Amino acid sequence: MNDQTLAELGEIESLRRTVARLSPSTHALVGSGDDAAVIVSEGSFVVSTDTLIENHDFKLAWSSAFDLGYKAVATNLADIAAMGAKPTALVVALVVPNSTKISWLEGFADGLDAACKALAPGAGVVGGDLASGEQIVVSVTVHGSLEARAPILRSGAKPGDIVAVAGTLGKSACGLALLESDNKDLISSYDDWVSYHLRPEPPIQQGVEAALAGASSMLDISDGLSQDLIRICKASNVSIKIFSKDLQGFEAMLELPALGLGVDPKSWVLHGGEDHALVATFPEGSTLPKAFKAIGVVVSGEPALYLDDKTLEPQGWDSVTGR
Amino acid sequence: MNDQTLAELGEIESLRRTVARLSPSTHALVGSGDDAAVIVSEGSFVVSTDTLIENHDFKLAWSSAFDLGYKAVATNLADIAAMGAKPTALVVALVVPNSTKISWLEGFADGLDAACKALAPGAGVVGGDLASGEQIVVSVTVHGSLEARAPILRSGAKPGDIVAVAGTLGKSACGLALLESDNKDLISSYDDWVSYHLRPEPPIQQGVEAALAGASSMLDISDGLSQDLIRICKASNVSIKIFSKDLQGFEAMLELPALGLGVDPKSWVLHGGEDHALVATFPEGSTLPKAFKAIGVVVSGEPALYLDDKTLEPQGWDSVTGR
Repeated sequence: MNDQTLAELGEIESLRRTVARLSPSTHALVGSGDDAAVIVSEGSFVVSTDTLIENHDFKLAWSSAFDLGYKAVATNLADIAAMGAKPTALVVALVVPNSTKISWLEGFADGLDAACKALAPGAGVVGGDLASGEQIVVSVTVHGSLEARAPILRSGAKPGDIVAVAGTLGKSACGLALLESDNKDLISSYDDWVSYHLRPEPPIQQGVEAALAGASSMLDISDGLSQDLIRICKASNVSIKIFSKDLQGFEAMLELPALGLGVDPKSWVLHGGEDHALVATFPEGSTLPKAFKAIGVVVSGEPALYLDDKTLEPQGWDSVTGR
Repeated sequence: MNDQTLAELGEIESLRRTVARLSPSTHALVGSGDDAAVIVSEGSFVVSTDTLIENHDFKLAWSSAFDLGYKAVATNLADIAAMGAKPTALVVALVVPNSTKISWLEGFADGLDAACKALAPGAGVVGGDLASGEQIVVSVTVHGSLEARAPILRSGAKPGDIVAVAGTLGKSACGLALLESDNKDLISSYDDWVSYHLRPEPPIQQGVEAALAGASSMLDISDGLSQDLIRICKASNVSIKIFSKDLQGFEAMLELPALGLGVDPKSWVLHGGEDHALVATFPEGSTLPKAFKAIGVVVSGEPALYLDDKTLEPQGWDSVTGR
């Protein structure tokens, strides 16, 4: 039965089978099936959207349907965590070729569901849209509750604040480099790093912990530490200085696969994207939440980034130009 | 300057120029530019998402960038209105080929903005995503406030209720038929109908009016009157009987272009999609809001639709199979 395609079954029946695999959000008064879902909200809510496009953001040769669903949810949840909010509900717009098998759609739904359960228990998919097109496009919009707290913006960093990271740095870039090497032995030896690229595990619940600990600014590292830290600098009108010695732990985690590939892992740590770690600033003297590790300090000055005493030029990823 | 393409300018600068043309939502505490937007909500909020795909849902030969932005917003707002809610904020994920000109993106943004201003003053785009792909895909997610009212679902219709419509029936299908005729004289003679297909004007504010008047069920007619009414029948476990005489006013509006094309307009009224009119049921004896016109009654029985005394088979549109 599941070898049937979207074209054979039609949108309505295909969508019905896909939605049937999703667990409800505990925050939804009305889930999918009406014109809109109804979500409980105490005070303000946060909302963010992000899109994954076949052959730009993922390759079907590397990502299973499950991986893709998982990654789409995980990366979007990180934006909610980065506001200091608790994820509540997602809507998913999926475009696939009409030759896509129903079993693929079911795997995708299972990935969506697994990521919600693992990273944000209680959150769930409350609506969506399924349509056919030439290439796969996944647009996820995710909502979160601030639970009456103020949002943690990029603009609140102050000179003297501690800069700290929760999650991994460079692990996703390392996994991508392994996949790109096309070296089957290395890929299977270091499948933990490859898996992280395909199914990232951002520290979602640590976003609320950072807010409760008084974080002054926060964002999730989607484009690389250097590129994302300079965003805090610009929004807050400060400089940030990070320290090589505090990044050594992150590099050590990448040492073995880096040796295998014959590269220096430092560039992955400084510039690698898609880890979706949280980087936050905390007032001087703060007790950092357990998951956060200090890597630098905020200093006064024009927006600029320093590694030890040298300027660090941001290197990032523009998803259109690929540079 | 605006002859530059997305590939030349890059995602970040292209997005900046596009976003600069959008008016803020009066409901946003934080708009675009951070990890997520922050929206004020009094109690529960409603959320819906919908996608338009090039060559499936629109053709660039017919739709300008402005038209496309306008239609994407208008069709999504109708889902919020159909819940009895007031639209507050939208997020827009746009995929375009990287050869797309910045002037096209600006026209698209102007269309988004114009539709918000015309149909839901105060609502606005609070975030989004721009990326490159092989064909244009527009995913809009829209939010609304129930203002402490209960949502109007599809499942609340009761035998004896009046069935009533706000907005147009068949006008969009008529416009599409004119475009498909490729008859330039007819297209320019009846440009009002063509415009409605390209830039629909659903009765957004009438959704709240219906809720305040006690509507027992409601949806927006996206796939055609027959297809959408049977959804109310199934969700509410009732039959609906509509009357030819009450549809004559809708047919009369289509008479001239129908004559030009040599067709009977009745099929457009009964089965034409994309008008995004609101169809609602109201308890017997209700005073209908001014914009609503009675077209039938809810009767007890298995889910089924009748036109006068004959069964009316739903004919609809499945966006994947095209049947």
